[in-house]
Order: sequence, then C-alpha cells, then structure tokens
Amino acid sequence: MAFRSFHPPQRVLMGPGPSDVSPRVLAAMARPTLGHLDPVFISMMDEVKALLQATFLTANELTMPVSAPGSAGMETCFVNLVEPGDTVIVCQNGVFGGRMKENVERSGGIPVMVQDDWGRAVDPQKLEDALTAHPEASLVAFVHAETSTGAQSDAGPLVRIAHAHGCLAIVDAVTSLGGTPLRVDDWEIDAIYSGTQKCLSCTPGLSPVSFGAKAREKVTGRKSKVQSWFLDLNLVMGYWGGATKRAYHHTAPINALYGLHEALVIVQEEGLDAAWARHQRNHLALRAGLEAMGLRFVVPERERLPQLNAIAIPDGVDDAAVRGLLLADYSLEIGAGLGAMAGKVWRIGLMGHGSNPRNVRYCLAALEDVLGRVKAPVARGVALDAANAVLGAA
Amino acid sequence: MAFRSFHPPQRVLMGPGPSDVSPRVLAAMARPTLGHLDPVFISMMDEVKALLQATFLTANELTMPVSAPGSAGMETCFVNLVEPGDTVIVCQNGVFGGRMKENVERSGGIPVMVQDDWGRAVDPQKLEDALTAHPEASLVAFVHAETSTGAQSDAGPLVRIAHAHGCLAIVDAVTSLGGTPLRVDDWEIDAIYSGTQKCLSCTPGLSPVSFGAKAREKVTGRKSKVQSWFLDLNLVMGYWGGATKRAYHHTAPINALYGLHEALVIVQEEGLDAAWARHQRNHLALRAGLEAMGLRFVVPERERLPQLNAIAIPDGVDDAAVRGLLLADYSLEIGAGLGAMAGKVWRIGLMGHGSNPRNVRYCLAALEDVLGRVKAPVARGVALDAANAVLGAA
Repeated sequence: MAFRSFHPPQRVLMGPGPSDVSPRVLAAMARPTLGHLDPVFISMMDEVKALLQATFLTANELTMPVSAPGSAGMETCFVNLVEPGDTVIVCQNGVFGGRMKENVERSGGIPVMVQDDWGRAVDPQKLEDALTAHPEASLVAFVHAETSTGAQSDAGPLVRIAHAHGCLAIVDAVTSLGGTPLRVDDWEIDAIYSGTQKCLSCTPGLSPVSFGAKAREKVTGRKSKVQSWFLDLNLVMGYWGGATKRAYHHTAPINALYGLHEALVIVQEEGLDAAWARHQRNHLALRAGLEAMGLRFVVPERERLPQLNAIAIPDGVDDAAVRGLLLADYSLEIGAGLGAMAGKVWRIGLMGHGSNPRNVRYCLAALEDVLGRVKAPVARGVALDAANAVLGAA
Repeated sequence: MAFRSFHPPQRVLMGPGPSDVSPRVLAAMARPTLGHLDPVFISMMDEVKALLQATFLTANELTMPVSAPGSAGMETCFVNLVEPGDTVIVCQNGVFGGRMKENVERSGGIPVMVQDDWGRAVDPQKLEDALTAHPEASLVAFVHAETSTGAQSDAGPLVRIAHAHGCLAIVDAVTSLGGTPLRVDDWEIDAIYSGTQKCLSCTPGLSPVSFGAKAREKVTGRKSKVQSWFLDLNLVMGYWGGATKRAYHHTAPINALYGLHEALVIVQEEGLDAAWARHQRNHLALRAGLEAMGLRFVVPERERLPQLNAIAIPDGVDDAAVRGLLLADYSLEIGAGLGAMAGKVWRIGLMGHGSNPRNVRYCLAALEDVLGRVKAPVARGVALDAANAVLGAA
C-alpha cells in the first residue's frame, strides 16, 4: 500500500450543503490547536456562544454547538426533551420529518405524524387538528427549511399553536440559519438545532443548538436519564455552561470551533438583515435564469427557500448524466433529489458565502451548456440575460 | 458587541490530549471542501478506511471514523452491542471505566464492575473471577490505555479470557492507537474505539472504530433498534460500507477527515514499529529527567504508558500555580489529574508528533525552572543531563 497526501479539487458547491466554505474559515481551521481547557480557548468558547446567540437572535443561555454534525443536533433535542411515553406531534413535509420520527421512537416517545405534501410548507390547520385530537401530546416538532424539498414553513405561527396546546416546540433550522429570517426569541422557539455547512459557510461537523427556559427545565427535571451520555445536556452544560470552572465532558473539536467562530464573525460583519437580503436577491436572479431556460420550480413561490432551489428535472433528461457533466466539466456540484424526490428534482443551493452573483451566472451558464448537450434544447444566452436583469448588470 | 477573528497562541501541548498537531494535518484541514457524496471524496473515504485498518492492524471491513470525538466512539460501541438486559463486565481502573458503566446503563444493560486500583493495569484474575460469577455476561469492556492514570493493561490476555467465557470484548484505545503496540486482529478484539487527538497527532473531533465479524453479526442481528439514530451502525454502514453506491446518512465532517487522512499517511510513512519505538525512547528520556528532579511516577514501571506519564505532585507544591506558570511563561500545557487523581498528579503527554526529544528537553527545562520558583528546590541541570544521556546527546 502506498498512500499519499490528499489534494482535493476546487469545486463550486451549489448543492444542499456543504456549500462553498469561506477561505477565511478554512484559514481559521488551520491555526494552532489549543487544549480544550486552555483559558484562551475557554474565552473563545464564550465568544462562540455569544455569536450563536446573535445569529439565532436569542438570549438563551443554553446556546452552543454540539460537537457533531446536524443529525446529532437533532438527536440532542429529542433525547433530551423526550421521555419514554411522551407523545410528540411531528409535522412531516420531506425527508427530515421522517428522521424526527425515528428520533422520537428511539427515545421511547410516541410519534403522531402530520403529513403534508413534499415541496409544500407545513399546514398550521393540520397541526391544530392533530393537537386537538391528541391532548396528551407534550412536544411538537417541525422543519423550518426542508433541505430535501426547498420548502419553508412559517415557524412563528406553528410555535404559537404548539404553545396554545401546552406543548414545547422543537425546530429544525439546519438550512435556514443565516440564510432566511429566523428569530428564536421573537417566535418563542423552545429548542432549535442547525448545521454549520449551509448558510454559515463553514465546514460540516458541528451543530449549533439553543434551548429556551422551559426546554431547559424539562431537561434538568427529567425523571429518566438521557439515554445518550455524549449528548446529555445535563453533562454538556458543565463544559459549555456559564460556570467559572469548566468541567471536562468530552474533548471539544477545537479547530472545527475555530472555523465556526470565524464563520459567525463573518455573519456579524455583514449583518443578518443584509445576509438575508443577499440570499433573496441572488435567488431571484437564479430563478429568472432558470425560468428563462424553461425550468420549473417544485415549491410554490411564497413557500420557497431562497437558499435552496428545487427544480423539476425536465422529461427525458438523464439526472445523473447532467450532474456528472456539471461535475466533470465545470467542477460544479448541484444536488440530486432525496427520498421520494430522487430522480425527480435537482436542488441548487445558494447558501452563505456561495450565495453570490458569480455563482448564479456560473451555474446558469453551465446548465445551459450541459442541458443543450444532453438533448434538452436550450436557447443560448437567455438565462444569463434574465439573471443579469435581476442583478442589475449592464 | 464587536467580534474579531480568533488567533490562538502557539502552545506546546504535553497534556493528555489534544497533543501537538502536525503542521501537515493543519494544512490538510484547510484544503477546499468537497461534497460528502463527491466521487473524489468517496475514494478518499476508502483510503481513510484502508489507512485505519493498517493502523489498527486489522482486516475488519467495518473500520471507519465516527463523526464525533472519542466519547461518541465509546457510545457507538455500547449502543450498538448492548441490548436491554445484557450483562456487561466493565473493568475499571480509572475515569474511563466509569464512563463505560454509564454507557452500559444508558443502553439498558446491567454493568458488573470489576475494580482495580487507579494507576494499575486491569488484573486478569479479577476478570476471570467475575466471568465465573456471572455466566450470564455477554460482553466485557476495558480500557487499554487509561488516559486518566497513564496505566496500560495487557489487552490480548484480557480478550482471551472474555472469549473463553463466550463474551465479546470492547476495548478503549483512545490513547494507545499509534503510540504503543496495539494489534486488533492478533488479539482478536471484537470492538475498539480510539481518538484522533492523541498519538495520531490530529485535531480532536473524530473517533476511529473497528468491529470484528462477531460484533458485526451482533449489530445486524439485534432484536431492538439501536437507541441512537446518529450512531446506528446499521445505517452508518450504508455510507461508510463497501457498497458501490453510498447512501446519505449524515453529512460527514469533510475537512476533519482530510486531517485524519493526512495524520494516518504520516503514521504509515514512519511505520508503526518505528512510531512505537520512538514513543518508548522519548518516554525513557523524560523519565530519566523527571526522576533526576526527584519526581515520582504513579504507575509501576511495567504498566506504564510511554505516551502518558503520570507523576505525583510533590508535597506542598501548588498544582494550579505550577501549571499556570508553565502556560504563562513557556506556553506549555501539561495535564492536571482527573477524577480521584485531581490535585494529586500531573499527566505529561508525549504523543504522536509531540513525542520528540525537543519536547522532552523543553518540558524538563520548564519544570525545573517553575518548580524552583514555587519553592520545591530543584538541582539545576540534572534533569537535562539525565535526559540527554538517554537521548544520546553529547
């Protein structure tokens, strides 16, 4: 066996995540490693917490990154908040609602599924009906931004309905944080988890979470132990909590946290409002170009995520062939469909650092070329003209 | 709030881990991020698996890094191999045996604790006795290299005893992998987990694991679902397994895996035998110097780990003051005691990249200076002379 150092090609990442990582984040990750109890590192952890609070728009003290990818952030919410026998209403409108169901069951809870069409927002009325039919429910869970479909749900009203029925609300914000308005305190979200590899322009591997006062009370007042030692917030709080002396729990992923710190500094430098507006503007430009090419969005306009554009694959076009050519000839990654949408849609991400006019134009030009080559006739240049009109180019 | 980029100081990490990270690993982590289903990334994953097999000295197909720190690797072993009601013999001779007990209980198993003195190896006779007294046991778990005490247990014979009683053996090799002989196949270890931030000279955040055929059968033949969705090997295998088409499970921590790949290439370049010999040589030099300074090892000589040197804090010496001065004046981190050993020992790591003559000399010189300043009289120069005699310096 002869192994050599690995040198990846430079891609343009326009799938559902990981998205293009800021060079500043990559540089931060290569800085010298500190010990996980080093006072200098501890003060950086405090900054990461404050930066996450500013990004989630929350004052929740229990706000921190879980030391593992978004799926572990989801699991952190469920294993800490679900006790055996708890009924949990799960609104499903894509792949990740299904994963929530798995989490509820494995935590000993009883899931009640509220189904919506994939590609649509969660219907508040269906949630209301389910809560009325299940007065024993104590938790409601839904996905704010469904990464599998590109649909956005109206989180504030859904949380209000949960509260009106005495339930706590768990929200999946993996794809929304940093890309589209999300206001944890204004919307009174009880528990939320996200990922670093979407609109934060960071590498994958961490999952920011935040828990409000009532969720925290539920965790500290549990009758049964949290089934996961690694994710038990009662223990994790000893390390990430506000105590002067931090207790060792697990070894934090030091350099990954440098990357997240830098990514969150970049978000603050731009400002959340400006970042959200930028995601929306580039989405509109991409949309104009895609529609000019005759491509059709899967999600109705008012339910679309600006950072994740799911479009129907035209009839007769070979899904894998197109994505393969984009990768081979343009080093451009767009996303395949997931679950029930596999083979039916492409998912084009404009997330974080990658949400910029250059990527919009590059993707449109590449798609125009490749679609033309796989025999889906495309009028040349119209997509770029349409995008340029939105972007204000001459 | 005004946040700026974080620029950590350059430390010399000679605690229990994280240890000094190779600059090659840091550089690898800053390379361009790929998608987690990119064919180029998939082939790098295959290399990481083969490199881990070569480092664990195993042909186990199910060998891969868990996408979270060592504690999650431990949890992966227990939640997958323990079914509710299983009796598990846990040999405890330090902090991490206690963590294993927590894992057994939270997985619904019944732990039977076999206690040895902290700072000593696990006693095979006690394990034999416990297995005779508990014929219902199906698993044995122990720590190969106790990070909390610096004691090494004789893994091969312990695994043989477990097998003679029809049990599978789970081994914690967080601190041993890469630093001291470890032969998964020769010793017939059924399940093993490690960390990246010790003798692999990588950043923290991943946990290499390996499962033998019988352990794998137990996982795939479970009557109950694995309680953790994130760590369920039945699902993780779909992504890390040998199938041509990888199924999305969670988003892999791409750049952290670049770092691990590079760290493992470095191990292969040096060769395991050479790396083990280097750790031993530098340990002997550090030991000569520490003993010349009048410091005393906690672990009996034949049970000592070369990569983690636990020494008794001299009477009347202020633990925190010494570590504080080492950090302030030498940017040198050594480890405090953990659990029952807090305040009683220092743990000096010579791990991976950090196990080198320069670090041996630097640490001895720094300790000599600082101990002298906190009023523990130290004869000047004798420690370096003693270390140099071992290192063969003029």
